[in-house]
Amino acid sequence: MKRDFLSTREWSLEELDDLLQRALRIKGGTDIPDFRGKVMSLLFFNASVRTRMSFESGMSRFGGHGVYVQPGKDTWVFEHRDGIVMDGNTQEHLREVAPVMSRFAHVIGIRKSDLITTSSTTADVEGSWSDVKQDPFMRAFAKHATVPVVNMESNMEHPCQELADRMTLAEKIPEPRGKKYVLTYSWHPKSLPLATPHSQVLSAAALGMNVVLLRPEGWDMDPEVTDAARERAEARGGSLEITDDIEGAYDGAVAVCAKAWGSMSYYGRAEEESEAKKAQRGRWIVDAEKMARTDNGVFMHCLPVRRGVVVTDDVLNHPNCVTTDQAENRLWAQVGLLTKLLQE
Amino acid sequence: MKRDFLSTREWSLEELDDLLQRALRIKGGTDIPDFRGKVMSLLFFNASVRTRMSFESGMSRFGGHGVYVQPGKDTWVFEHRDGIVMDGNTQEHLREVAPVMSRFAHVIGIRKSDLITTSSTTADVEGSWSDVKQDPFMRAFAKHATVPVVNMESNMEHPCQELADRMTLAEKIPEPRGKKYVLTYSWHPKSLPLATPHSQVLSAAALGMNVVLLRPEGWDMDPEVTDAARERAEARGGSLEITDDIEGAYDGAVAVCAKAWGSMSYYGRAEEESEAKKAQRGRWIVDAEKMARTDNGVFMHCLPVRRGVVVTDDVLNHPNCVTTDQAENRLWAQVGLLTKLLQE
Amino acid sequence: MKRDFLSTREWSLEELDDLLQRALRIKGGTDIPDFRGKVMSLLFFNASVRTRMSFESGMSRFGGHGVYVQPGKDTWVFEHRDGIVMDGNTQEHLREVAPVMSRFAHVIGIRKSDLITTSSTTADVEGSWSDVKQDPFMRAFAKHATVPVVNMESNMEHPCQELADRMTLAEKIPEPRGKKYVLTYSWHPKSLPLATPHSQVLSAAALGMNVVLLRPEGWDMDPEVTDAARERAEARGGSLEITDDIEGAYDGAVAVCAKAWGSMSYYGRAEEESEAKKAQRGRWIVDAEKMARTDNGVFMHCLPVRRGVVVTDDVLNHPNCVTTDQAENRLWAQVGLLTKLLQE
Repeated sequence: MKRDFLSTREWSLEELDDLLQRALRIKGGTDIPDFRGKVMSLLFFNASVRTRMSFESGMSRFGGHGVYVQPGKDTWVFEHRDGIVMDGNTQEHLREVAPVMSRFAHVIGIRKSDLITTSSTTADVEGSWSDVKQDPFMRAFAKHATVPVVNMESNMEHPCQELADRMTLAEKIPEPRGKKYVLTYSWHPKSLPLATPHSQVLSAAALGMNVVLLRPEGWDMDPEVTDAARERAEARGGSLEITDDIEGAYDGAVAVCAKAWGSMSYYGRAEEESEAKKAQRGRWIVDAEKMARTDNGVFMHCLPVRRGVVVTDDVLNHPNCVTTDQAENRLWAQVGLLTKLLQE
Repeated sequence: MKRDFLSTREWSLEELDDLLQRALRIKGGTDIPDFRGKVMSLLFFNASVRTRMSFESGMSRFGGHGVYVQPGKDTWVFEHRDGIVMDGNTQEHLREVAPVMSRFAHVIGIRKSDLITTSSTTADVEGSWSDVKQDPFMRAFAKHATVPVVNMESNMEHPCQELADRMTLAEKIPEPRGKKYVLTYSWHPKSLPLATPHSQVLSAAALGMNVVLLRPEGWDMDPEVTDAARERAEARGGSLEITDDIEGAYDGAVAVCAKAWGSMSYYGRAEEESEAKKAQRGRWIVDAEKMARTDNGVFMHCLPVRRGVVVTDDVLNHPNCVTTDQAENRLWAQVGLLTKLLQE
Repeated sequence: MKRDFLSTREWSLEELDDLLQRALRIKGGTDIPDFRGKVMSLLFFNASVRTRMSFESGMSRFGGHGVYVQPGKDTWVFEHRDGIVMDGNTQEHLREVAPVMSRFAHVIGIRKSDLITTSSTTADVEGSWSDVKQDPFMRAFAKHATVPVVNMESNMEHPCQELADRMTLAEKIPEPRGKKYVLTYSWHPKSLPLATPHSQVLSAAALGMNVVLLRPEGWDMDPEVTDAARERAEARGGSLEITDDIEGAYDGAVAVCAKAWGSMSYYGRAEEESEAKKAQRGRWIVDAEKMARTDNGVFMHCLPVRRGVVVTDDVLNHPNCVTTDQAENRLWAQVGLLTKLLQE
């Protein structure tokens, strides 16, 4: 029976602990995966540096191979809706694509964030956040695939980032339980997807940290995710707090993770949001003054990051900045996941 | 002496039988290729899902590597005509490209279907079907290459599809000789290339089936191909019939393969053809009613297929639909071919 | 301590001799590299056939893997300048990109020739030749990377071409010291980069040849390079001469290498240069008549070459044309370099 990795909310905390241990053993050299003869199909509807390179490198280092595919550029335009007469711009249905790719590859990764996917690459995505958060394309693909499907970032979650962030916290924060982790919103010229901050809050919650979600009113995360994060944190002896008190949030934190995201209520209407958030610029940036309030906290960011906009240069250049390790851990966390998905 | 795989009409039936046996042995696990240290260059002038993934996966699974190249995007614009003063848009001649790639790769695959190649990627293709059917670019490339060149779809043939279809028929139809195979034309909004249906008729003919080519008047295949198919079928105890009698064609068939293609007489004039074929829509679609006339026949299609346009959903979702196996067999058929081209 | 390969002027002649010997041993089969588990990141800001295929093939043949990345198409837009507030078109700074890629790959190759990079892929390049010759992007990348960076062609040099050309001369010309090598300018419709001819002059100089740089007045190379080439040639018993005497230059040459390039003084102003060089067409082409003045000289070109424009067909089709071997040697020279950078 194949197992997909679409949302960590569908995996138990014990299973997620196991994935973390796998990643740590492989990074430490005490476990050496064997991916010889294995192929991973990597479907990117959106651009990527880290996700693509970490998967392709991770497969190659251990003898496997990643096939990098850019749907809509390299391929046909895919349809995911059932019962459609395909006389429009879509050329191939997932009912064909997914089973066929499952014969060519042993695992399939998909990145598809509709906010930044151009409409030419798939059927148009319509509707509000409540529609797109269901990740209809990725769910349909996984349903019709006969091999495991890995979410390389969807509308709702970026679970590989979650694994990497959790691994980084585990490495950098001894005994993280009950310690303060801040995920702070930051102003950015664009309206960015919610998937990454969702997964970052979930990462710290799984370690039983006291998670503080710091954001301006109106820039909340999806309640489904914050509810799940609260439940996780509490199950592990931590907590979840949502606030707009910037100074209070930084006080005593052992880790600050910055991220910009778009408001659910403005979903798909970037210009309006841009206007509404003008006053935030400067106020929400992560700078040395704010970091000074922390308990010698590490600084995290998923990258790419706009210097001088989301975070100041001095924070990024400081020894407490762990963004490079965090990015590197994408590789180990994903290789650990693949040993689970491919070898069992 | 290198051997190209440009047209199966240049290979004997015995050689094609050998390729089939190789593919079946490898799929069955009784023969394991060793492609370590081998590189295949994959030149795609047109988009692809199956062809690219099946070659890249096939090379990788057995230790080799496929280099995916999109000429005109990744590379210079190539010239294939001799004696040209290259002061226009072409930047590099096949007299240089082909021998150089032959030093970097052990085998070279080329997909180039001029009907769907944008003119920016090569010298403009001019002229009618009688010109382009000579596949001047691919033939010039093969002439100047010093390693085997594989046709990954040209104007005239798609011989890897032929191998896969033949393998699928051999797997699904016990004792195919003398049994009825129908290749049916189907309406499609675009004017698609002839190469695939050409190769599909040749695939069934090589098994000695009674091949029925079902198409409306004016949408004939190239007579060179149908003549070759008739000769093959008869040599193997079968026959070739060309008809527009839809009901009669389906009666008693053990396999129905659907495909849309453009008329030779409208070649390059898609809008005129679109007008001329309006009345075909609906009449030529493969549906459950037509399939009910067959002898529990399997349904085949090379993919991608437009659901509700070329074939109905119920036919594609039926257990007799073998399109996924047919696509998978691309991999095995091609790996079998590569063992012949690379290891001898 | 990592070692970059950005400019051969930063490597000693003895080190370059060692690289040549490595390449010859590997080509001859007496040394077999082991790149298993090794990954090379290949960043192409400009199109390529030979460079990409030779690196990707070279890594794969010996068990490694090259990840082909097209920044700006596949990735974010990179910033290399320090202290910038990144609220414009650049999305990620090399201070993040370079260390992160250094965790995913064991060596990083970069092709970035600003003359032919579209501005959308990086921060705009401004200024004259004296600015861009510093290769600010590649130098910043190498500074922030923690693994070796290989110049796959910058504004100033194409050092991998230098290695391949030197290897070709070493193979084709017994006892090259003191023999005459001509690098001749040739007319071309475009203003091409200077990096390749720079590296070609350096290649012959390192063998102690009598190097003749043949070009029209106003189409000089950068004096930094010609000075370095003269110093090298003299250190090895050869010489450097710069001339516009076409007949005299060809007389008695054992090797003629042709290349078109743009004038430093017209840098970035192709239309003006195009007008100024009109009279050169025809006069500077390499043809059989000119080659007849040589001492049975071999003909070299880095490719791609425009037939009938830069060189005539009869020279390119002549047995003394060694361009295919020269291109093949890219692979061996680079594999030799990688054994130095990866295995030590």
